[in-house]
Amino acid sequence: MEGQLAHIGAGLAGLGTGLAALGVGNVAANFLSGALRNPSAAASQTATLFIGIAFAEALGIFSFLVALLLMFAV
Amino acid sequence: MEGQLAHIGAGLAGLGTGLAALGVGNVAANFLSGALRNPSAAASQTATLFIGIAFAEALGIFSFLVALLLMFAV
Amino acid sequence: MEGQLAHIGAGLAGLGTGLAALGVGNVAANFLSGALRNPSAAASQTATLFIGIAFAEALGIFSFLVALLLMFAV
Amino acid sequence: MEGQLAHIGAGLAGLGTGLAALGVGNVAANFLSGALRNPSAAASQTATLFIGIAFAEALGIFSFLVALLLMFAV
Amino acid sequence: MEGQLAHIGAGLAGLGTGLAALGVGNVAANFLSGALRNPSAAASQTATLFIGIAFAEALGIFSFLVALLLMFAV
Repeated sequence: MEGQLAHIGAGLAGLGTGLAALGVGNVAANFLSGALRNPSAAASQTATLFIGIAFAEALGIFSFLVALLLMFAV
Repeated sequence: MEGQLAHIGAGLAGLGTGLAALGVGNVAANFLSGALRNPSAAASQTATLFIGIAFAEALGIFSFLVALLLMFAV
Repeated sequence: MEGQLAHIGAGLAGLGTGLAALGVGNVAANFLSGALRNPSAAASQTATLFIGIAFAEALGIFSFLVALLLMFAV
Repeated sequence: MEGQLAHIGAGLAGLGTGLAALGVGNVAANFLSGALRNPSAAASQTATLFIGIAFAEALGIFSFLVALLLMFAV
Repeated sequence: MEGQLAHIGAGLAGLGTGLAALGVGNVAANFLSGALRNPSAAASQTATLFIGIAFAEALGIFSFLVALLLMFAV
């Protein structure tokens, strides 16, 4: 059972990766909801959309990284 | 019991894959909700829809990848 | 107890499959909600509806695939 | 304890089946909410209602299938 | 501890049965909310109400079935 418990940890980190998709989805969802209500303002907020997606995506990728490290580095 | 614990981890990562579907669904749901309220603006936001889906879907696929790695690579 | 732990993982992935149904449901629910408020625009968004369902459904089917792999392939 | 752990997995998949009912319920709930606000448009969206229910129900039935396979096939 | 673990699985499936009640409740709740705003249209949507309840209830009953099978058949 040496090193096997780390794989459960990797799975939990993978679960976190999936949860981060909820955060990314919320950002994009609310941008779309607002942009379709007021399309003329959408272009000015595109930068903010990418900032919001990038920070949420980064955490999901950190979670994915934890899973990779648990599988291959520890 | 060699390598068996990794399969629980794969299941947890598969659970994360399913959760990511919620994020993808939210993006598409809000686009549809807005597009049907203001159809003339829908075409201009289609690119944003695909960006939002792509980033959320990517995290779901990372989670699926963790499950595959846990089953076949570690 | 050989191979038994993988079955808990399959169950977890099956739980993820069920959760993905929430994402798919949200897409269809928001389409219906919007289409009944503005029926004349519904036809133009049917393609988007299927795109949204397809991406969310794909992640649910990936999750189901993890469950099948855990039961029969590993 | 042979084969017993698979039953916990079957239970988890059964939990996913129940969660999928939330997705199916959301579709029908939003249809009813919209149809009672605008009854004349309801007939034109009945096909979409069944499409939405079918895709969400399918994932719930996949989850149920995982539970059955875990109990009787593995 | 023979057969005892199956009872945890039955409990988890029972939890899913309860969660499905949320989905069924949403359908009925939205019907009532709409029907009381527009009572004259309620009669025409009664069939849809029963369809929505039936599909969500079916998944809850599948979940209940998993619990029963885990207790008495496996």
